[in-house]
Amino acid sequence: MTVEFSLAPELARDCIELADWPLCKVLLMNDSQYPWFILVPRKANLKEIIDLSESEQVLLMQESAKLSRLLKKVLNPDKLNVAALGNMVPQLHIHHIARYKTDVAWPAPVWGKYPAVPYSEEQLARLKAYF
Amino acid sequence: MTVEFSLAPELARDCIELADWPLCKVLLMNDSQYPWFILVPRKANLKEIIDLSESEQVLLMQESAKLSRLLKKVLNPDKLNVAALGNMVPQLHIHHIARYKTDVAWPAPVWGKYPAVPYSEEQLARLKAYF
Repeated sequence: MTVEFSLAPELARDCIELADWPLCKVLLMNDSQYPWFILVPRKANLKEIIDLSESEQVLLMQESAKLSRLLKKVLNPDKLNVAALGNMVPQLHIHHIARYKTDVAWPAPVWGKYPAVPYSEEQLARLKAYF
Repeated sequence: MTVEFSLAPELARDCIELADWPLCKVLLMNDSQYPWFILVPRKANLKEIIDLSESEQVLLMQESAKLSRLLKKVLNPDKLNVAALGNMVPQLHIHHIARYKTDVAWPAPVWGKYPAVPYSEEQLARLKAYF
């Protein structure tokens, strides 16, 4: 029996779907404090990056690099934070966060730091235009 | 003029060098609260993963997978945390942390959570034996 991919309920609740790339779903965390994007490989039962096949790992690296280059180009961050944690939501997902020395959490990691501040419709429209 | 790679002073101070793989130096964070390993590509002036060439990015993914498989096999963690942050230490380095539901920081990220508790010589010898 094939188990089909479905997005973890916490990610569906907290994020906005932006695009489907060949391997990953591209999500935007609905937290206007940081430009915070998430790649979720659309394959069931993944927990770790090494649960992907070798060719899928290369594809993940390529999509991660594509997203990173895009964020660097359009948002000019001081630093990118790229991370697969999954302590709270076990479905494999890779955070890509554009960090600024002026953001509310800098230099700490963003996870669990401050409650999310949702985007306005106008802010969302501007970010969605890049995808 | 070629600028040669040298390890960031903070990483040299806080970590123990375990091995040199084809692309990366393998470090162990001297904090016995978590099995916490770090890959540092041995190339000067890197800040982001996308500062590596495409073939180096693939090599990084392969070395990250090798380290992840090793940690999963010998340490049997509940979750791996794999992350390139660099807000404090800008030199590109990729954390690989074996996390347990029983560790002191779970489910929070480990960064900035608790002061490091250095390993004993005996603990160190046991971890070094895997490399």
